[in-house]
Amino acid sequence: MDALVLEGAQRISLRPFSLPQTVGPRDVRIRIHTVGICGSDIHYYQHGRIGPFVVNEPMVLGHEAAGTVVQVGDEVQHLKPGDRVCMEPGVPDMDSRASREGLYNLDPKVRFWATPPVHGCLAPFVVHPAAFTYKLPDNVSFAEGAIVEPLSIGLQAAKKAAIKPGDVAVVLGAGTIGMMCVLAALAGGCSRVIVCDMVPEKLALIGGTPGVTAVNIREASVREVVRRATDDWGANIVFEASGSEKAFDGIVDLLCPGGCLVLVGMPQHPVPLDIVALQIKEARVESVFRYANIFPRAIQLIASGRIDVKPFISRSFAFADGIKAFEEAASGNPTDVKVQIVME
Amino acid sequence: MDALVLEGAQRISLRPFSLPQTVGPRDVRIRIHTVGICGSDIHYYQHGRIGPFVVNEPMVLGHEAAGTVVQVGDEVQHLKPGDRVCMEPGVPDMDSRASREGLYNLDPKVRFWATPPVHGCLAPFVVHPAAFTYKLPDNVSFAEGAIVEPLSIGLQAAKKAAIKPGDVAVVLGAGTIGMMCVLAALAGGCSRVIVCDMVPEKLALIGGTPGVTAVNIREASVREVVRRATDDWGANIVFEASGSEKAFDGIVDLLCPGGCLVLVGMPQHPVPLDIVALQIKEARVESVFRYANIFPRAIQLIASGRIDVKPFISRSFAFADGIKAFEEAASGNPTDVKVQIVME
Amino acid sequence: MDALVLEGAQRISLRPFSLPQTVGPRDVRIRIHTVGICGSDIHYYQHGRIGPFVVNEPMVLGHEAAGTVVQVGDEVQHLKPGDRVCMEPGVPDMDSRASREGLYNLDPKVRFWATPPVHGCLAPFVVHPAAFTYKLPDNVSFAEGAIVEPLSIGLQAAKKAAIKPGDVAVVLGAGTIGMMCVLAALAGGCSRVIVCDMVPEKLALIGGTPGVTAVNIREASVREVVRRATDDWGANIVFEASGSEKAFDGIVDLLCPGGCLVLVGMPQHPVPLDIVALQIKEARVESVFRYANIFPRAIQLIASGRIDVKPFISRSFAFADGIKAFEEAASGNPTDVKVQIVME
Amino acid sequence: MDALVLEGAQRISLRPFSLPQTVGPRDVRIRIHTVGICGSDIHYYQHGRIGPFVVNEPMVLGHEAAGTVVQVGDEVQHLKPGDRVCMEPGVPDMDSRASREGLYNLDPKVRFWATPPVHGCLAPFVVHPAAFTYKLPDNVSFAEGAIVEPLSIGLQAAKKAAIKPGDVAVVLGAGTIGMMCVLAALAGGCSRVIVCDMVPEKLALIGGTPGVTAVNIREASVREVVRRATDDWGANIVFEASGSEKAFDGIVDLLCPGGCLVLVGMPQHPVPLDIVALQIKEARVESVFRYANIFPRAIQLIASGRIDVKPFISRSFAFADGIKAFEEAASGNPTDVKVQIVME
Repeated sequence: MDALVLEGAQRISLRPFSLPQTVGPRDVRIRIHTVGICGSDIHYYQHGRIGPFVVNEPMVLGHEAAGTVVQVGDEVQHLKPGDRVCMEPGVPDMDSRASREGLYNLDPKVRFWATPPVHGCLAPFVVHPAAFTYKLPDNVSFAEGAIVEPLSIGLQAAKKAAIKPGDVAVVLGAGTIGMMCVLAALAGGCSRVIVCDMVPEKLALIGGTPGVTAVNIREASVREVVRRATDDWGANIVFEASGSEKAFDGIVDLLCPGGCLVLVGMPQHPVPLDIVALQIKEARVESVFRYANIFPRAIQLIASGRIDVKPFISRSFAFADGIKAFEEAASGNPTDVKVQIVME
Repeated sequence: MDALVLEGAQRISLRPFSLPQTVGPRDVRIRIHTVGICGSDIHYYQHGRIGPFVVNEPMVLGHEAAGTVVQVGDEVQHLKPGDRVCMEPGVPDMDSRASREGLYNLDPKVRFWATPPVHGCLAPFVVHPAAFTYKLPDNVSFAEGAIVEPLSIGLQAAKKAAIKPGDVAVVLGAGTIGMMCVLAALAGGCSRVIVCDMVPEKLALIGGTPGVTAVNIREASVREVVRRATDDWGANIVFEASGSEKAFDGIVDLLCPGGCLVLVGMPQHPVPLDIVALQIKEARVESVFRYANIFPRAIQLIASGRIDVKPFISRSFAFADGIKAFEEAASGNPTDVKVQIVME
Repeated sequence: MDALVLEGAQRISLRPFSLPQTVGPRDVRIRIHTVGICGSDIHYYQHGRIGPFVVNEPMVLGHEAAGTVVQVGDEVQHLKPGDRVCMEPGVPDMDSRASREGLYNLDPKVRFWATPPVHGCLAPFVVHPAAFTYKLPDNVSFAEGAIVEPLSIGLQAAKKAAIKPGDVAVVLGAGTIGMMCVLAALAGGCSRVIVCDMVPEKLALIGGTPGVTAVNIREASVREVVRRATDDWGANIVFEASGSEKAFDGIVDLLCPGGCLVLVGMPQHPVPLDIVALQIKEARVESVFRYANIFPRAIQLIASGRIDVKPFISRSFAFADGIKAFEEAASGNPTDVKVQIVME
Repeated sequence: MDALVLEGAQRISLRPFSLPQTVGPRDVRIRIHTVGICGSDIHYYQHGRIGPFVVNEPMVLGHEAAGTVVQVGDEVQHLKPGDRVCMEPGVPDMDSRASREGLYNLDPKVRFWATPPVHGCLAPFVVHPAAFTYKLPDNVSFAEGAIVEPLSIGLQAAKKAAIKPGDVAVVLGAGTIGMMCVLAALAGGCSRVIVCDMVPEKLALIGGTPGVTAVNIREASVREVVRRATDDWGANIVFEASGSEKAFDGIVDLLCPGGCLVLVGMPQHPVPLDIVALQIKEARVESVFRYANIFPRAIQLIASGRIDVKPFISRSFAFADGIKAFEEAASGNPTDVKVQIVME
């Protein structure tokens, strides 16, 4: 069984690799169909590490996956062989305090695909807990199933924002996660979303979504756009999805009194925040780490047509061309949002 | 100046009537353009009263209105003559305790158009506080502006529900307010809405909205539809918008654990509720009385295209035919949702 | 090993009974020290059933327990032999959807001590999952540890109410759970609690708590007391803890605009509720089913002195006198709040 | 009529000064009894300005006041001459958008006592809107009434924190506002509060409150104290009440997963915040600007005995010694919490 293996920084192989295939009583075994390439996969590929997480031994990549159940454990009731599914890549200890409180994404013991030393899912078959494996409705494709993971980050952000119907949102950064925040904000109740970036291709793509105003920050003042769109009141919500320190300059000025700033992007260093500016508006700040209890919501929103992710699935490669897929994804092509690998 | 005046039960005239026209420093004077006919207008017309509110003296009808500002008071800043506007029909005492807490709709001293002894707005000109007069964007028509009021009830219900993105909702009752709840639930974050009624015409109309499943309760079991749509989990939210006591039979069974029941319809008598059924699901119940701080949200959602109210504006009549408009609206035509009167 | 066994309605024995003693890797084995007698224990004793839960085979009673860890499974880290502990009596399937959402109390598969066919803990030793076993601080006695369970119901109610600092609450019913609601409401942020009942002894006991006003409903109008205590505004929260249908008469009149009714007591039949009265105040209704993630909070509140449960532990009996303890608890002595059994 | 007038930086006089005394229909005229000296009063006294607010003309100081109603306007219903009252010093435009949303403290047009160019209340008589004048119960003294204002800031912080019963809180900074946060956190539902400062006298005073652990950060590690008090879980809430940039070092480490940081203190410059640290815990950040709808809550909590402010009223001076009172308050005496001026 071949897998796509990161041997170390900038060394990737498609080679035989054995992942455990024992199916426990609450597990399912899945034939992988489609796997999206995430920015974190690319970062591990390019640097061999993300912060404290270092690839010291060969590691199978991939964590955005959809496939078909081929075997179920004795106690599994909601899935059966043949079911088309997508999988939540993080598996917490459900007995932990965080998990009991419904915050299983914050369990420090969570095992997350393709985060060293845990292997990912770019392999023909994987075994996964049934509790974190979700059935896809007939009208949701494998490609859509494999984009549920990044969409879930946007939806977690939207859930944290506690959007009220008709809110106006700003999304700073039109990378993949920024775009998912835009879709999630609209689906989650916003009347309109103002999205800001510097890359014209990305702005053109996301700007085509009804309700979205795309702003190139090299050409226009976000603050002015927000001011005009809200009769000087300010945006109800700002999603910071760029991870850039510069995005924080004057970020509070975009908010209305009582507004909410949602931290999605992960700046590398501490960022200066104007506390008094926050206070004068009694702004709330929410922060996002992956997601919990979001996959079923993402699947429902795709299935019902409320979110259309198809324009954001840019290209797909055969598993045999998996290394090329990574090279392409890493090249920073401005028209690529999500690159996926499809198993034979 | 002619107005549409309810003289008493079943007696309505279009006749000269003078409404106060003094413009205070914080008021605006508005030339009325379009007024929707509400179920309460019809009820007053048919019965001369609603509960304790009795039409003892002739009363101008109408409270769902849009028009054009013709004069502004000295302290008014956000409006000017020529602005197209819609108006919130209830004017609270903003110094009351409820108003200070942001619950101005709950102020017992609120003066509400066409609720005796307060006159409504079915007249060529009215004076209104600027704080409760909202500018319409260019792409929102007077007809849309005049339907902001009933839509706001749906949005208040959606706000109270605290929808999370991807929630599944049920709306019981496909009258005008039920339909507004459907639109609000979808715009407010639901992935899909199951709406139930017995009138095929109404179900056909609202069922045409993407994301909506219309169920004729004479032909299918709502509970079964919900069960299948949610993999046995139950709906996150049930909006009771029928006001019918029968709708409460087994209503809690439709909810998922931790779900929310929103009381929008107003049953005439106390309704038996199964407390233990609520408890076993730790269900939350929210109730709705008009709206507060919703008009700007409704206008934004219409302007951005997130809510399309046009299919629900069924017919319009000239002011000169206002009596006929009332007769028609009162006739219970199943294809009518909102009937409006347009001033010359 | 003797246990206190309910053989059927009104037949209780202290006799040899073997409970499973195998300690799994995530379990602990506990020497039971103190067990409180709950109203549900008494109800099973008197009637052999509670609603659909029927005692068809002999069942060990008891679910409010504290004791000492004597053995721990291989994977248990937060407990060790010798630790004094109290136990959450309901054990959910942590992989269920409800559990993943943090609502493990709503998991339909929960196994709850002394709810047929699950045995309780009135036995010298029990085995329990470590995740639902909580260490007691040195300054919390076994007797206090054994009252954490009923207190947790009050705290769950207080958590659901989302008390704001300084809220005024009403508690209807001064039974054990009502008293726990009073303590929880005060500890949870209320400035004062008005508690209502008909039994002078109970009112005298709970009325001794600072911040509490005890009202005998045979002698005074609750509504009038609330009106005066809140300058006509109404109570922010009403906890219905009597389970009596009569308590619902005019219950909404006690609330302020935007107030919250918390359903704690379990009426046997559906109760008529005035929907319009709820709506005019836009009241919220919350319901309570046991508790989730509350035990650590209850323990902290007792340990810090914010809640003093000692006045509510009325009498204790030796295990050998366990049958007598049940007879006494069932006799309805008005000065008894909590009767406990202490193992030799 | 003499008033305590700030002529400019470090120049204060007790001299004749006429404040407007016209009583509008919704106003009351109050004979001032007690006025507390706030840190902002002292700051204006020492520097003649706070940020953009500059004392360009003589300004009456004082905004923490209690007194007796001597005259009421025609429309005033809830107050009458002779009522003992305290006053909310900020008067918003209740028609503003922020006010309509219940956020009247965020109305940019708010007129706040002793914030240039608005005069304060250190004068024998003031006129104030009845809606922002609150009756004191008989058992609340004028001194207590005059400390309602700073206590309200603590309570606003506690309300924003959305404390759940039994939460553990940390308060950074034991100045007057820090101490009010401690009292508010306990009254608002916390089981215990860990308060940190460097001044032994302040720690000794606040440490005497049951439920409070006082930590001198020169002698102990706050993080270690929190770790031990919470079994390594972290505090549910951290109130930053020092305004010191240093307090932000490692501040997120004090929080539990899903915890809340409340920004009360106002650092002079932007403060570096570790965004990723916030995200890993999905921490929420709330910010506080004065208060809204809090005075009645503060008064109720004092009246019911849930909050005892008396230990924090350190000294009082006669109005004739008002200048001395300011000099003393400005001297930074470590045993002074609140210094008050009592009118003759």
